[in-house]
Amino acid sequence: MSERKRSHWGWGWADKFPGTEQRKQLGQQLGMMLGIEPTGPAEPVALDDVALHDARVAAPEKLSFVTDEREERIRHTYGRAFTDVARGFVGDFSPAPDLVAHPTTEEEVGHVLDWAQGAKVAVVPYGGGTSVVRGVECPLPPGFAGTLSLDLRGLDRVLEVESTSRTARIQAGATGPRLEEQLAEHGMTLRCFPQSFEHSTLGGWIATRAGGHFATNYTHIDDLTAAIRALTPAGVKEGEVWASRRLPGSGAGPSPDRMMLGSEGTLGVITEAWMRVRPKPQFRASASVRFQKYEDAVAACRAVAQSGLFPSNCRLLDSREAKLNMVATDGSAVLLLGFESADHALEPWMARALELAKDFGGEPSEPKYSDSGKKTGDSGQAGSWKNAFIEMPYLQNVLLSLGVIADTFETAIPWDRFEELHAAIVKNVRGAMKEVSGSPCHLSCRFTHVYPDGPAPYYTFIAPGRPGAELEQWAAIKKAASDTLIEHGATITHHHAVGRTHRPWFRKQRPQGFGDALRALKGALDPEGILNPGALI
Amino acid sequence: MSERKRSHWGWGWADKFPGTEQRKQLGQQLGMMLGIEPTGPAEPVALDDVALHDARVAAPEKLSFVTDEREERIRHTYGRAFTDVARGFVGDFSPAPDLVAHPTTEEEVGHVLDWAQGAKVAVVPYGGGTSVVRGVECPLPPGFAGTLSLDLRGLDRVLEVESTSRTARIQAGATGPRLEEQLAEHGMTLRCFPQSFEHSTLGGWIATRAGGHFATNYTHIDDLTAAIRALTPAGVKEGEVWASRRLPGSGAGPSPDRMMLGSEGTLGVITEAWMRVRPKPQFRASASVRFQKYEDAVAACRAVAQSGLFPSNCRLLDSREAKLNMVATDGSAVLLLGFESADHALEPWMARALELAKDFGGEPSEPKYSDSGKKTGDSGQAGSWKNAFIEMPYLQNVLLSLGVIADTFETAIPWDRFEELHAAIVKNVRGAMKEVSGSPCHLSCRFTHVYPDGPAPYYTFIAPGRPGAELEQWAAIKKAASDTLIEHGATITHHHAVGRTHRPWFRKQRPQGFGDALRALKGALDPEGILNPGALI
Repeated sequence: MSERKRSHWGWGWADKFPGTEQRKQLGQQLGMMLGIEPTGPAEPVALDDVALHDARVAAPEKLSFVTDEREERIRHTYGRAFTDVARGFVGDFSPAPDLVAHPTTEEEVGHVLDWAQGAKVAVVPYGGGTSVVRGVECPLPPGFAGTLSLDLRGLDRVLEVESTSRTARIQAGATGPRLEEQLAEHGMTLRCFPQSFEHSTLGGWIATRAGGHFATNYTHIDDLTAAIRALTPAGVKEGEVWASRRLPGSGAGPSPDRMMLGSEGTLGVITEAWMRVRPKPQFRASASVRFQKYEDAVAACRAVAQSGLFPSNCRLLDSREAKLNMVATDGSAVLLLGFESADHALEPWMARALELAKDFGGEPSEPKYSDSGKKTGDSGQAGSWKNAFIEMPYLQNVLLSLGVIADTFETAIPWDRFEELHAAIVKNVRGAMKEVSGSPCHLSCRFTHVYPDGPAPYYTFIAPGRPGAELEQWAAIKKAASDTLIEHGATITHHHAVGRTHRPWFRKQRPQGFGDALRALKGALDPEGILNPGALI
Repeated sequence: MSERKRSHWGWGWADKFPGTEQRKQLGQQLGMMLGIEPTGPAEPVALDDVALHDARVAAPEKLSFVTDEREERIRHTYGRAFTDVARGFVGDFSPAPDLVAHPTTEEEVGHVLDWAQGAKVAVVPYGGGTSVVRGVECPLPPGFAGTLSLDLRGLDRVLEVESTSRTARIQAGATGPRLEEQLAEHGMTLRCFPQSFEHSTLGGWIATRAGGHFATNYTHIDDLTAAIRALTPAGVKEGEVWASRRLPGSGAGPSPDRMMLGSEGTLGVITEAWMRVRPKPQFRASASVRFQKYEDAVAACRAVAQSGLFPSNCRLLDSREAKLNMVATDGSAVLLLGFESADHALEPWMARALELAKDFGGEPSEPKYSDSGKKTGDSGQAGSWKNAFIEMPYLQNVLLSLGVIADTFETAIPWDRFEELHAAIVKNVRGAMKEVSGSPCHLSCRFTHVYPDGPAPYYTFIAPGRPGAELEQWAAIKKAASDTLIEHGATITHHHAVGRTHRPWFRKQRPQGFGDALRALKGALDPEGILNPGALI
């Protein structure tokens, strides 16, 4: 059996990219649904036809797990931002790393950092390669001899499961499925399901502060992390490992874990972490609520977020998002509600949440309950949405081949500022799309997470592209979106990261002096500045 | 009406220190209860009789809110650690600051930092002065001309309340009662009730990562903080203010707020923060559960902590703690359970928690429910404990005057390591008390917070002192406790801080390289090193 291969240019598995004829049909359907006229379909440049520069640096022989093999370098060039997929599609892999390392032990990671500091080689920690902010792309920085992609997927084991404390020690290179299958042997689950779950890794989730499965309460990877182990370039020189204690909580100084969380590969290479795991849920409850008016749906969503009921699902789809995902086609906004527990039946929780939704004019479906440990949430409106969620990134591949620009952006904002922000986003992003595309476009919004003090809105935009101008068009739309977010007090991330894409806006968001603080930290932990130069800081 | 004065040497209000005769009687009761023979009672050195060194530095005239007045300097010398109270009692105020500043605006805070950098004066941010880790005590550091206590209590206003998002902008110098009374005008509450609530301030809570009212779920001040505003010495030079955005969540880079949280006045002076507030609870449920065996009680407590029910109270008192606090005198361990909500009645929550407790042999009281917004939790066993909680620090004053050493220490530890840690603490701390006191002593334990992955045990020890040797005896007991915590994988804090007291153990706890990281941060934000030198780092 040959190994299933990922696409060398687009999202996910290569075998999931439909044939030309099928894409043509999809394009016609899209045209009818969104009023966007597709072109093409065009075909991606084949792996063998990619032109690649020669490696500028060679690794010493003792680093036997480092390669300059052409396909490896191509496959480690990009993450999966729109910009990455668009460049990969046309065969532009100019920022390819010179070398790719496949360590299988922490010691080997240390050897790479040790050598790279002396050889002035930039090192980009690489997990699933699913960054949507150019977080793993590293064009040769000034003063460097070469670049190396440090692929950590060889460190993919669950090393210990501590059932009493519900914690597990997991290597950073484990992908979602890899770590879940190992945890399942102990009846445990991490329940962190970012959209990239199939391919992304624990280390990547920590480095980018991934948002997880739950719509409320402890869901950020930050909250699930009990301790982090990392190698820093300075530490490697001193023979030291950065390792925090496994603790349920501590007030001792600023948290060292919170320093690594979100560091995006610029301060150290995360090698493993103690994570807070849990038994698989046994009880589930799900329902969906339709709203005629979006403002009412937002208010209901806020009431549930502030109720202390802590639903596992509380995702509000606006009418366009509901339509796009085939959850509702009558113009309703839909609130998907779910609860899950390994401990107790959930009727009182769901009943109260539906009461709150009804207070704001919501029309709920009959809630479904399950106490068998079997899923019930995969049918009906919630199920439609969930399937769409997993498949959505694949759609971007297809649309690109049809000459259509499709992307998403996210943020978080206090409830009191959402209405104004949303209106500005609709105006400015629609305006930008109109300007660069001159034709009808799609913009929709869902909430991925909700907090007592605000929602995390997630926008999808789709606009027709002009062949050869797609990157420019995308940049104009992205700028309109990002400027609006920053002007209206929201946060600038995508799949929770800053990367290279968001740096100009991140500078405006962060406190004055925080840039100096980050640079000082980097100076202490990575004095040669070899780790992921150009990202974040 | 004259202003109520705090004790110049001991915990809390001066008028709460009982007269000689009353203390004598308390001593006799204590002798019977714990088998400890008190001495004295001795009398504290009166404020007027304290010998104080002259101020070594003078502030410029434009800093009109800075004083070198004798009483002010005495009152700002110490926090309220055992070591502080013991030194204050005998009139030793040798580490007194030279100056005390009472700014009432952020601008005035900036003027102090500006001047102090040039004049090489160490600045200690001061809130309630309730540190139990020598966090506000600042003996003259080498190379400094003098020391200044920066009392922030003049910045005590709630500046904005945003009801839709349930957030409030609060100045850092507001004490617990001050901020709660202002929030109450808007029907809101922060619900952060550390034991020091009456005197300590929001800024102090943030700087020391205070633990709050709730025994589970979002309770740390870290979780309640939506944005922080601070002045750093470097920022003051550049005319910059460190201010993060008010956001419900963000994955953009390492969190700047988490850098200030726990910084203990060494990186910046926190001037205000946006805090997550909530309406006062309307529904309450409370019950207590007795256990014959402590191991069963621990297991039950763990089951509740891992259930996802999120009780507001889940405090386990061992049999000695239950006895000391007059919650149970029959040798039972007692689990105090409570739920509260502003949204929904709590019967299903409490019912399931009691089921879990019964699974482990617990004998629950009849649960009490209230839906009127009135408290029911203040009677019965929970009520006894709550009153004891508030009054406990006052007892230390009394015991000290009776020649008795009484103090507490805290930690957090994964569930799987608790039993071993607890056994070692009992052995080593009892051993140390026996060695320095040679007579029967008291050691008891309660859980202040519980997490899915572990409890936060909090120990009380009481041992007879030898006149004049109390500090030495205390240090030996403290060392035994702290060594044991660090050896057994626990965390070293007290009321969540490191301060000056815990530095040797904090160095062992933190990751290798984290000290360099903190020093680098400090170098960037406080290049002259004027902020609280000697604390934390």
